[in-house]
Amino acid sequence: MSEDGIKEYCGLFGISHHPEAARLTYLGLYALQHRGEESAGIVSTDGEIMFAYKGMGLVSEVFDEEKIKKLKGSAAIGHVRYSTTGSSLLRNAQPILVDCAGYRVAIGHNGNLTNAAELRRQLEEKGALFQTTTDSEIIVHLLAHEAGTSFEDRIMSSLIKAKGAFSLVLMTQDLLIGVRDPYGFRPLALGQFDGAYVLASESCAFDLIGAKFIRELEPGEVLFIDGKKKMKSLMLPRLSPARDAACIFELIYFARPDSTIFGWSVQRFREELGSRLAKEHPAGADLVIAVPDSGNSAALGYSRTSGIPFEIGMIRNHYIGRTFIQPTQDLRDFKVRVKLNPVRQIIEGKRVVVVDDSIVRGTTSKMRVHALKQAGAKEVHMRISCPPIKFPCPYGIDFPTSEELIASNRKVEDIRKFLGADSLGYLSMEGLLDVAKNHHDKFCSACFSGDYAVSFDENAMRRSKDKPRNVYYFEE
Amino acid sequence: MSEDGIKEYCGLFGISHHPEAARLTYLGLYALQHRGEESAGIVSTDGEIMFAYKGMGLVSEVFDEEKIKKLKGSAAIGHVRYSTTGSSLLRNAQPILVDCAGYRVAIGHNGNLTNAAELRRQLEEKGALFQTTTDSEIIVHLLAHEAGTSFEDRIMSSLIKAKGAFSLVLMTQDLLIGVRDPYGFRPLALGQFDGAYVLASESCAFDLIGAKFIRELEPGEVLFIDGKKKMKSLMLPRLSPARDAACIFELIYFARPDSTIFGWSVQRFREELGSRLAKEHPAGADLVIAVPDSGNSAALGYSRTSGIPFEIGMIRNHYIGRTFIQPTQDLRDFKVRVKLNPVRQIIEGKRVVVVDDSIVRGTTSKMRVHALKQAGAKEVHMRISCPPIKFPCPYGIDFPTSEELIASNRKVEDIRKFLGADSLGYLSMEGLLDVAKNHHDKFCSACFSGDYAVSFDENAMRRSKDKPRNVYYFEE
Amino acid sequence: MSEDGIKEYCGLFGISHHPEAARLTYLGLYALQHRGEESAGIVSTDGEIMFAYKGMGLVSEVFDEEKIKKLKGSAAIGHVRYSTTGSSLLRNAQPILVDCAGYRVAIGHNGNLTNAAELRRQLEEKGALFQTTTDSEIIVHLLAHEAGTSFEDRIMSSLIKAKGAFSLVLMTQDLLIGVRDPYGFRPLALGQFDGAYVLASESCAFDLIGAKFIRELEPGEVLFIDGKKKMKSLMLPRLSPARDAACIFELIYFARPDSTIFGWSVQRFREELGSRLAKEHPAGADLVIAVPDSGNSAALGYSRTSGIPFEIGMIRNHYIGRTFIQPTQDLRDFKVRVKLNPVRQIIEGKRVVVVDDSIVRGTTSKMRVHALKQAGAKEVHMRISCPPIKFPCPYGIDFPTSEELIASNRKVEDIRKFLGADSLGYLSMEGLLDVAKNHHDKFCSACFSGDYAVSFDENAMRRSKDKPRNVYYFEE
Amino acid sequence: MSEDGIKEYCGLFGISHHPEAARLTYLGLYALQHRGEESAGIVSTDGEIMFAYKGMGLVSEVFDEEKIKKLKGSAAIGHVRYSTTGSSLLRNAQPILVDCAGYRVAIGHNGNLTNAAELRRQLEEKGALFQTTTDSEIIVHLLAHEAGTSFEDRIMSSLIKAKGAFSLVLMTQDLLIGVRDPYGFRPLALGQFDGAYVLASESCAFDLIGAKFIRELEPGEVLFIDGKKKMKSLMLPRLSPARDAACIFELIYFARPDSTIFGWSVQRFREELGSRLAKEHPAGADLVIAVPDSGNSAALGYSRTSGIPFEIGMIRNHYIGRTFIQPTQDLRDFKVRVKLNPVRQIIEGKRVVVVDDSIVRGTTSKMRVHALKQAGAKEVHMRISCPPIKFPCPYGIDFPTSEELIASNRKVEDIRKFLGADSLGYLSMEGLLDVAKNHHDKFCSACFSGDYAVSFDENAMRRSKDKPRNVYYFEE
Repeated sequence: MSEDGIKEYCGLFGISHHPEAARLTYLGLYALQHRGEESAGIVSTDGEIMFAYKGMGLVSEVFDEEKIKKLKGSAAIGHVRYSTTGSSLLRNAQPILVDCAGYRVAIGHNGNLTNAAELRRQLEEKGALFQTTTDSEIIVHLLAHEAGTSFEDRIMSSLIKAKGAFSLVLMTQDLLIGVRDPYGFRPLALGQFDGAYVLASESCAFDLIGAKFIRELEPGEVLFIDGKKKMKSLMLPRLSPARDAACIFELIYFARPDSTIFGWSVQRFREELGSRLAKEHPAGADLVIAVPDSGNSAALGYSRTSGIPFEIGMIRNHYIGRTFIQPTQDLRDFKVRVKLNPVRQIIEGKRVVVVDDSIVRGTTSKMRVHALKQAGAKEVHMRISCPPIKFPCPYGIDFPTSEELIASNRKVEDIRKFLGADSLGYLSMEGLLDVAKNHHDKFCSACFSGDYAVSFDENAMRRSKDKPRNVYYFEE
Repeated sequence: MSEDGIKEYCGLFGISHHPEAARLTYLGLYALQHRGEESAGIVSTDGEIMFAYKGMGLVSEVFDEEKIKKLKGSAAIGHVRYSTTGSSLLRNAQPILVDCAGYRVAIGHNGNLTNAAELRRQLEEKGALFQTTTDSEIIVHLLAHEAGTSFEDRIMSSLIKAKGAFSLVLMTQDLLIGVRDPYGFRPLALGQFDGAYVLASESCAFDLIGAKFIRELEPGEVLFIDGKKKMKSLMLPRLSPARDAACIFELIYFARPDSTIFGWSVQRFREELGSRLAKEHPAGADLVIAVPDSGNSAALGYSRTSGIPFEIGMIRNHYIGRTFIQPTQDLRDFKVRVKLNPVRQIIEGKRVVVVDDSIVRGTTSKMRVHALKQAGAKEVHMRISCPPIKFPCPYGIDFPTSEELIASNRKVEDIRKFLGADSLGYLSMEGLLDVAKNHHDKFCSACFSGDYAVSFDENAMRRSKDKPRNVYYFEE
Repeated sequence: MSEDGIKEYCGLFGISHHPEAARLTYLGLYALQHRGEESAGIVSTDGEIMFAYKGMGLVSEVFDEEKIKKLKGSAAIGHVRYSTTGSSLLRNAQPILVDCAGYRVAIGHNGNLTNAAELRRQLEEKGALFQTTTDSEIIVHLLAHEAGTSFEDRIMSSLIKAKGAFSLVLMTQDLLIGVRDPYGFRPLALGQFDGAYVLASESCAFDLIGAKFIRELEPGEVLFIDGKKKMKSLMLPRLSPARDAACIFELIYFARPDSTIFGWSVQRFREELGSRLAKEHPAGADLVIAVPDSGNSAALGYSRTSGIPFEIGMIRNHYIGRTFIQPTQDLRDFKVRVKLNPVRQIIEGKRVVVVDDSIVRGTTSKMRVHALKQAGAKEVHMRISCPPIKFPCPYGIDFPTSEELIASNRKVEDIRKFLGADSLGYLSMEGLLDVAKNHHDKFCSACFSGDYAVSFDENAMRRSKDKPRNVYYFEE
Repeated sequence: MSEDGIKEYCGLFGISHHPEAARLTYLGLYALQHRGEESAGIVSTDGEIMFAYKGMGLVSEVFDEEKIKKLKGSAAIGHVRYSTTGSSLLRNAQPILVDCAGYRVAIGHNGNLTNAAELRRQLEEKGALFQTTTDSEIIVHLLAHEAGTSFEDRIMSSLIKAKGAFSLVLMTQDLLIGVRDPYGFRPLALGQFDGAYVLASESCAFDLIGAKFIRELEPGEVLFIDGKKKMKSLMLPRLSPARDAACIFELIYFARPDSTIFGWSVQRFREELGSRLAKEHPAGADLVIAVPDSGNSAALGYSRTSGIPFEIGMIRNHYIGRTFIQPTQDLRDFKVRVKLNPVRQIIEGKRVVVVDDSIVRGTTSKMRVHALKQAGAKEVHMRISCPPIKFPCPYGIDFPTSEELIASNRKVEDIRKFLGADSLGYLSMEGLLDVAKNHHDKFCSACFSGDYAVSFDENAMRRSKDKPRNVYYFEE
């Protein structure tokens, strides 16, 4: 599904009280790279000075030994970022760092504020000058304009004004702070390592550095870790009746399979989706294959429950670079084939179940089906381990507009025809919720249902996307 | 196994009679990238002039649209190259192109000549000046010093002097030539596409461009494709009794699973290895996992035959860059974990069979076992889908010296202890040959048996490696 | 003198009403490159959107055809910047561009505010967040916090708060604005070209694009050029009694010889300095040579008045790169010699007058004298075309601290001994003012006299330099 | 004159018996940079191994501290290279280094062999494979094919076959060798430094490192410096009657003014040319200006003899980058003006003598005259310090073809009209020889006279230039 381009996620990491803070942050970001490939940044502090470095590209490209050495101190936060092309600029890279009268603060953000435009307007009226188009900058301006006797007070009264999805890591000279919004849209977990406290979007970052997973932050929790390693949690007010809205799409597609988020093993969750999918949409087929790697777990689950053997039917090319020279017109769907090549010797003459995690625009799936048929598949039965995606996401997943979502106004049979598949089965909403409900009943599944936990002005969002930008830093 | 570093393979591609020759060569090399990540090069011809571009790095890094456009003409050959560090130089990149009195020729080579040092000495005595340390340059010098009325004659009388492993693609202004040495150590196949003839090391390159696989070249075959698309095959003399020696390690590890080489579907071959392995070395375990991606097929075969469920127990990080900042000492085996992270939720408390394709030095495998235990595995049963590697390879695979090969002078039980595994099972030589024999009985398996098809002077090879180099281009 | 490092100047350019606005700005910056080699930037506008590009390095390195093409519109401003190492960061590059509630403004600044720290503190108290350490950002924050019914009002009431040296170019969607502070420390001129209005720090930028020089802006003038090409000038209040303070060091050293600034031909001014110097400090010598290129004009003047022949006695190496590999200790003063090599055949056995524009630390001059003696000069008579530099400059020239200025607490005879020269003559203050007074009597010569037109807190400046920075973007 | 593009010179440096051999070579090349800006290379030896590094670009760009450190040993040779665009390739960079049976040799070449094509053909017939299009490679192939009991014999019998212009530095593990061809077309000098022997194309390289100039090599001299610092000179046979042919254009334009070559101080020589020019072509003018920097010395000589004051009438922009964004059509001769801007305040209303060293195609000179007129010059009197260039150079200076040389078939009056100058005076052949004859009577001035010392086949040279290349490495 990756080619269909669900972007605009981010990954967060934070650590305090460790002499190798920046190095461990680098490693943590490495593990979280899948959450944002566009830019990476780290800010560290030695308790007095703050050190910052950000750059465009992968973590391994942005940082080197020399840079890590310059990021001194025993606390650090880091950020990886995805974004839509338009604002793909170094100036929008995070963490954002400001040096204000009386304090310095660095902040990294994952999510999307639904009242960003309104907050920005209010702040600009007070004389705030914005240098970026990021929600993170809104939060630092809120902080700067907030009166308050303590930094703690200012944080709380600032965050109360933010609406929508926000997991945050913040750092001052003597505090490391983790935040999850009152709905808990995005994940954030707490770990412990070698006497240090660690925050990370996903637990796979803990595994890499060998840290122990302690717990996920609660929705609405603002966790302060001070210079003496004391922890204190304050809660942002919840709406009544309180409702959680953990993004179920993190479990379906985005998170790494070896992570634990929202209380679930991601891989187990996906296997169960596949298992349920096999019950809902059985197929008379010779083998089950996955669209690797995101469909692997669900395909295994499907195979196990259906009894149809699992095979490796597509080979992923690990060398896909940023730029790919387009072949001429006659050689279309190359771009798809160059990434995943069907294994003719496995597929030829067979009835194949293909399990994928989701369909967004449908164009890539269509080309996959075509490639499988060309490789000799007798029948291609598409199975999707989530319901049809029909609604845009205002909370941080950059789905295309409703018009571009293939399922927004088409029946499943029409989609099947478009794809050229012999059959097509989506997991039902009940199926998805059944799997999820066993353990947890508080997910946001608005992209399937349109049932939004936090209201937002879709027209405003659309306008904001369509509006010609006033200022165009075309590169820097 | 990749971290254990089997290097020094190469990938070849050639095409004639297509207006997009260089572009298709680029795509073909893309599919063959796994055969050589160090440098890439393409030479094309418009029938008069030859155009060349080579660079260090991946195909996607070396070439861009502008460069492809400058590689004019309707015929082209391409090359990707791996090598040991010492000679990792642009000057050694291929294809090699020479403009001689009367002709121009470009050549790409996969393999290793066993009489390279001797040939080079003879040529230098005749006044030949060598610019590189590659075997390919030896072949062009042979050509230059060969008398002969026709280019065809010169090719044949030159190649007759070469001993060892060599698959070649050659190109003059009006000929495209494919060569496999008389033992057929390395693969080379012929395909057809859109009226053009195509040569490639592996059939996966045909799949990518949509070409039709025709056949593999015979051992000893020298295939000429001329400007009128006429094909002619001459044969290099075979030793008597003729014996093939196709490198079985291509099937075990090196080739892409979606390729067909030496008459085998690579993936099916590996599944059968895994299946046989399950019979030879059963295990009382809860699940079977692979060391991805090279162990995947064998693990599936093992699971299927043993009935123990297959699971995804390690997650591969797709973002491994060239340089990786080392963590501090306390955090060892990071480098291993950053590439493949065990999925704790799958492994914890379980008895696990881990299937890998081979063990070279053993250090990486040891760290994998350790990581799995740390992730909570109750028992770790290593299963290797080939026999113990005991002997170096003079035919193009850069195994380390016997001293460094863990199996060269250790019993399996000692290796098991070194790895820290609960049990260890290698596929037997009989098992391997059984699987291979069903379809083909002419493999070289000298790395397991020490039975070398073409004799070579191990001391000379060792001296050549140990000898201080006279000339040190430290970069260019 | 260049090696002695007088830095922290900047160059400004602006143009409106021309379809090639960005391209002409690029060319204008090219001509102003000597005013700032560290970073370059251009902001353009099509009347609606603003387009910006900034980068580290020379104008020719930062921009290329593609970037110029993206800087659309018929108005543009540009900036080149020098700075001390510490803040040598892309984020400090100019012009600064902000997109505020109700307006967008870009600004480029040349000079140094003496009340920057105070203004910044006041603004931060109101919640302003600073992203850079530049004075320009202070001005945009002043604008953002200024109430006012019109943009014009806001500009005027903002600028009234700024103290010290500031020449500015500003641009909104429909205005191009040029500003000189009430003392006129830094130059700024108005020109006309092909129906367009042009602003530039020096007239050499007009010459390059073929624009006609109209006049210099008056001290205190704020010149508005609107969308209909109407010009309006408002005046910032002058102190009483009004006093101009044009930086005489621009004429002595900094400006390009082919520029006209402060009413003077720079080259003629320097020739007159040399001529006067010959009268004040004659020398019994065989020839006059210059420290090229900055001493050339004064040396010619000296030669003409003294009658001693002018010769080219040092050759400038045009290939000095950014980084220069240091020779070993035994080969000192290489760095000096590699830039300017004495011509032994001219100098050997001769009594030489060497004319330089100024001496800052003295170390480079000492090495020059040594090199001349080594090349065989019998006597070396240093002549300096300005008085001894004794005082730091708070208005934008980055002289070192008093302690490092060789003349701040040393007699001329002591300096002569330090340099190893046979005689040393500085132009007298009277001589300098005589030359200047003929045409203009309103210069700032505080670096020689300590008579500062605008008071400043030297301790505060020093503290600000010594203070450890709170935030350290070590690169970006 | 530089824009008119006389290219294809090279600079040589060599040193033996110094622990900092590579570093000093780097510095020497720095001083010789004007002889070749395209590529730079150094080969060093520790008596056993040879270390090599070459790259495209300026010396300061190609080398850094790390690379210099890797160039170990106490002997080194270096090379800077200019070339025509076509062969502007890293593979053609020098020194060339070969590792042959029995010996290793590195070689750097300055000049042009007139029998290169013939030698190459003969060598290719013997099986030699050429990797470059350089004359240097011909020399190493000659060496490789030469029988001979000693390396000394082989050198001598190889060089005897070379015809045309060649100054060479060669290095083996234990020898440093300097060579000047029997006509002495190109310079090469011997110096001494800190116990080491040094070779350099021009003495300015000695000045930079502080070496003592000993003497120039004799035409035909082959100077061997062995491992024990013993020197031995052998002579290549001279033709009878012996005739020297030192390139007078080195003195007129190419060499650095602070060098001594062919027994002359370059700067003094140029001053005398200017002086003689004033006598031959007086002008009723107000001032004399130079086209800087190459016309400076002659302009001074002209001013001194004519009594017309010397002024700095054009300012050279030191920031010209490799790429320059072209202004639009309306703004022509920008490219000329951006390099040298006339000083309007000096020139306006004046009758100006402009002294330049030479005219090649004439297009740049035409634009200079135009720019001076636009800057207000009342009259422009061009004076050229050499005779009209009418003939191509087969000995290493890349003049354009006769057709493109403006003087090849035009009268002086026609050239004057083309340039738009009020008068034009070239130095006469007699004048040039008079100046030269005073000290030396053995120059090659074939570019003015057509009197070639070594015959060559102009048609062959032309064909070789026109011939489509067979092999096109468009980059590497």
